[in-house]
Amino acid sequence: MTIPAPLTGVVPPVCTPLTPEGEVDVPSLLGLLDHLVTGGVHGLFVLGSTSEAAYLTDRQRRLVVETTVAHLGGQLPVLAGAIDMTTPRVLEHAASAAAAGADAVVVTAPFYARTHPAEIARHYRRIAAACPVPVLAYDIPSAVHTKLPAGLVLELAADGVLAGLKDSSGDLGGFREVVTGVRARPGVTGFSVLTGSELIVDAALAVGADGAVPGLANVDPHGYVRLDRLHRSGDRDGARAEQERLCALFGLVDVGDPARMGGASSAIGAFKAALHLRGVIACPVTAEPQVPLSPDEVARVGKYLAGAGLL
Amino acid sequence: MTIPAPLTGVVPPVCTPLTPEGEVDVPSLLGLLDHLVTGGVHGLFVLGSTSEAAYLTDRQRRLVVETTVAHLGGQLPVLAGAIDMTTPRVLEHAASAAAAGADAVVVTAPFYARTHPAEIARHYRRIAAACPVPVLAYDIPSAVHTKLPAGLVLELAADGVLAGLKDSSGDLGGFREVVTGVRARPGVTGFSVLTGSELIVDAALAVGADGAVPGLANVDPHGYVRLDRLHRSGDRDGARAEQERLCALFGLVDVGDPARMGGASSAIGAFKAALHLRGVIACPVTAEPQVPLSPDEVARVGKYLAGAGLL
Amino acid sequence: MTIPAPLTGVVPPVCTPLTPEGEVDVPSLLGLLDHLVTGGVHGLFVLGSTSEAAYLTDRQRRLVVETTVAHLGGQLPVLAGAIDMTTPRVLEHAASAAAAGADAVVVTAPFYARTHPAEIARHYRRIAAACPVPVLAYDIPSAVHTKLPAGLVLELAADGVLAGLKDSSGDLGGFREVVTGVRARPGVTGFSVLTGSELIVDAALAVGADGAVPGLANVDPHGYVRLDRLHRSGDRDGARAEQERLCALFGLVDVGDPARMGGASSAIGAFKAALHLRGVIACPVTAEPQVPLSPDEVARVGKYLAGAGLL
Amino acid sequence: MTIPAPLTGVVPPVCTPLTPEGEVDVPSLLGLLDHLVTGGVHGLFVLGSTSEAAYLTDRQRRLVVETTVAHLGGQLPVLAGAIDMTTPRVLEHAASAAAAGADAVVVTAPFYARTHPAEIARHYRRIAAACPVPVLAYDIPSAVHTKLPAGLVLELAADGVLAGLKDSSGDLGGFREVVTGVRARPGVTGFSVLTGSELIVDAALAVGADGAVPGLANVDPHGYVRLDRLHRSGDRDGARAEQERLCALFGLVDVGDPARMGGASSAIGAFKAALHLRGVIACPVTAEPQVPLSPDEVARVGKYLAGAGLL
Repeated sequence: MTIPAPLTGVVPPVCTPLTPEGEVDVPSLLGLLDHLVTGGVHGLFVLGSTSEAAYLTDRQRRLVVETTVAHLGGQLPVLAGAIDMTTPRVLEHAASAAAAGADAVVVTAPFYARTHPAEIARHYRRIAAACPVPVLAYDIPSAVHTKLPAGLVLELAADGVLAGLKDSSGDLGGFREVVTGVRARPGVTGFSVLTGSELIVDAALAVGADGAVPGLANVDPHGYVRLDRLHRSGDRDGARAEQERLCALFGLVDVGDPARMGGASSAIGAFKAALHLRGVIACPVTAEPQVPLSPDEVARVGKYLAGAGLL
Repeated sequence: MTIPAPLTGVVPPVCTPLTPEGEVDVPSLLGLLDHLVTGGVHGLFVLGSTSEAAYLTDRQRRLVVETTVAHLGGQLPVLAGAIDMTTPRVLEHAASAAAAGADAVVVTAPFYARTHPAEIARHYRRIAAACPVPVLAYDIPSAVHTKLPAGLVLELAADGVLAGLKDSSGDLGGFREVVTGVRARPGVTGFSVLTGSELIVDAALAVGADGAVPGLANVDPHGYVRLDRLHRSGDRDGARAEQERLCALFGLVDVGDPARMGGASSAIGAFKAALHLRGVIACPVTAEPQVPLSPDEVARVGKYLAGAGLL
Repeated sequence: MTIPAPLTGVVPPVCTPLTPEGEVDVPSLLGLLDHLVTGGVHGLFVLGSTSEAAYLTDRQRRLVVETTVAHLGGQLPVLAGAIDMTTPRVLEHAASAAAAGADAVVVTAPFYARTHPAEIARHYRRIAAACPVPVLAYDIPSAVHTKLPAGLVLELAADGVLAGLKDSSGDLGGFREVVTGVRARPGVTGFSVLTGSELIVDAALAVGADGAVPGLANVDPHGYVRLDRLHRSGDRDGARAEQERLCALFGLVDVGDPARMGGASSAIGAFKAALHLRGVIACPVTAEPQVPLSPDEVARVGKYLAGAGLL
Repeated sequence: MTIPAPLTGVVPPVCTPLTPEGEVDVPSLLGLLDHLVTGGVHGLFVLGSTSEAAYLTDRQRRLVVETTVAHLGGQLPVLAGAIDMTTPRVLEHAASAAAAGADAVVVTAPFYARTHPAEIARHYRRIAAACPVPVLAYDIPSAVHTKLPAGLVLELAADGVLAGLKDSSGDLGGFREVVTGVRARPGVTGFSVLTGSELIVDAALAVGADGAVPGLANVDPHGYVRLDRLHRSGDRDGARAEQERLCALFGLVDVGDPARMGGASSAIGAFKAALHLRGVIACPVTAEPQVPLSPDEVARVGKYLAGAGLL
């Protein structure tokens, strides 16, 4: 299918359920997709950071896209991350994702290699020129250690290189600069501006975001869908209340002991533990070298779910 | 072959010559290998950062290792980088490099994903357990945004997980802590401590390094081999003079205009331009999205070579 | 006077006009204060980052507070920054500001010295214990290279150590955590949560900020006062439109050539050039070692003012 | 006195003994000065980072310089840090230190304010123009979050702005670039290149450093003086052995529990605990907001001293 231009609403970055052996757990992935579709989401983003794309092998990445595309059957647009260090490697992931049926790919700035704005622009131009589906930029400084400048995004939007932006930088001022910049350029139409900051989706929508890509929507898709609907109906205070409820639930990402594990182990471990406790996936295991949550930490995840009425 | 324990001397991180189309230029790679072997080096490190490993596809990476191993025919030990974000992806690169004949693999801390010391330890333990050849740690904070703590390296050395360290951190104090720590642990034998800091190889050898992995040795292998020989013969002042000559030559990495490109484009571009000017490789092109040097910038590389008597 | 608890509305960080010799230009400071009071602001913050507090000597800092307090005559609350590296030095600034009549002081985490959360907490506890006026925390990671954790701010609020927060971190998610955390703690009353992010004041108010401390309000106080009034009247779309107008005006901070100067030289230089062009201050000079704007760059500031109807 | 040009040998950054009330403990300071002079050091650096300059009030800073200068009576050169955020504030500290008798001042790049190389150059030029004594640059990126580029230091040396460099960056490659650059510029004479990296003083001397400013020399001045003498006598292996002994002793800086305090609390706390255990100073207290070492941690400092034969 062609992705909507712009893409609006809630587009969760889909967790990748794994078996205890670290393989993609296809039945659980299907269950998670059903859970999200039933929750009313407006699109799916596979192979993002929350999906543990950085931990999946090429074969596993391809399996995730194929499984998702086949299961969705065109019901909803499917975006796929093409996460790798540099242009030649990203080109391969993008081609693979498109061949597997993804409707668009989502691409970060180069990483590992030191980057320069001119190199970032070149990177996106080369990829868009070769890629059969639309390319969205993925701004995630915590992972790639570069912030995409708003001016660069707008230049690439104006040149038809980028079809959208997924902004996980947490910088709402810069996000707004893209939103208003897109609106001010008459030639730019259908560009999708999506926020990845799950704690301020209401604020991002209020400044003009088209949609949101919240990791926590794996756990509570209905909540984010309600938030989106409340916003669109003009009920700002209702949207804020729903967002605050989701912020409280988001506390589950900190259950992991920081002396024992990093933030990703804790956050992704908590999302998967929550999905397991809710009966959506068969096994909460995360990929290596992430450290698993302890039983006590999982119990704390359960308390968050209970507090949110999700158990 | 089994790599020496410890590995000593000069082990250049081998540049990867490319064709104008971005393919591995095998004849040029063979020429470069001959240039290095003739220069007297003691081992070869393919698929490191200077090799543009971050830019090569899996197929290209495999071709580089196979070509190098076949051409060397066991004359010298061949180390191969296995550079990727996380454990499952590194495991595939390591298996591929070992299958292609690499004598050891060189592995960084995880990147893109946020890391924690416990996760780094887990990463190396999993990889060493599964990898058929020895594993060396690659400490390169400029790329992975984490510094390997000396204590962690020593713990993994003592447990037989790591066979060595390639330190590109520039932190000679931390490097020394590993050198003296290895010596102080009676159970740790044959651990290789190699410096990647091409400007202070004499100092690293003086504090006890086993060897060096200098990118500039692509351009002037004889110089680093002389430096190593002078050091081993006890001629510290001679080693220093040779190092200072090489430091002056190293100025070529800065020929690229910082308004137009990043440091990697400039440095790797300059190494390749120098190899091209010296007649070692057929084409100085670097991988995308690196920005090419201008003719003027290449001319400045030539002046550095002439100044060093290398043209 | 006692500062309102919480302090609400627009509290500009007041620029410090200087003479060509680098002395505080008292008549211009009085003119600027009148300009702000006439603009309808709800309080004044002197000796903040926008005030070039980092560049003023102790004598100049004291002169600024005394001049402001005397001129205001209790009309509006006056907050004063007490910006220095560590507890003993901040204690002296805080005592001086309080003696000069400031109604509250605003204090960052320690800097220069490496800090630890336990040391930050200790810092604020010692200062609040000794300081005769309320203490607000100033979260400005771009200057002090530490982010104040929301949990730490809430703990210090609950213990009566802090009277408020001025958040210049740009992290609206963390800001919201303080806003909702304060509301959720029954014992915490009157705590002021203020945003320093001039591009998202509408969003910060919508998530529950008490007020804003926007540097750009020096140039256009009426704009921010309108924004605040529109928000409080429930006209969210009007507030957004006003904010977007101010965002466009904010573009003036980038007039300085990045090859020739840093971001502070450009931003503070532009604020002062705008105040000079509007006839509010006598001289646009900034403190050493900031690089002055060129005539062309000043002309571009003028175009921004004209575009906003401020000339 | 006029400082030697270049200044050579061991120039400890003198700890500032404090009373339990946080005042400068003058008798202990005199005792520490005697301890260092007796140890054979070649100069003294007061008000550096190890001196807790960032924590001392202006009055305390002046007292330290006056006390030291009066006690030394011209026996040894006295350098004084003039540590503050920007030019106008540093100018006051430099004038105060010179008036109190310091033979030279040591100045960092601006901090808190964001900096640009052009602003750093301007900063040093203004200070040197106004300061009655020579100015040395203090390169300490861990504190000021900027690295002084070697090219900038050399330009300021060639223009007679800087009389020397105290390099606490840990980057021996960049340090060497200054050493060899100074030597290559015929007009630059008497420029002092000093290392602040206490773990690699032997290596820094071998690459051409004039001297060292090691914090650990407070605890063991004789050791660093021996190291310096061994190096100058051409006994490189002897110098290395002495350095390795000092590196082992340096382990005492890590006695503090990282869950309870930051690195500065631990390191400065350990230096002072060692001086107290050795009977040099009356009280090991550190300035606020540093966290004190526990009795157990102090006991571990004692073990390091015993191991080094210093108790």
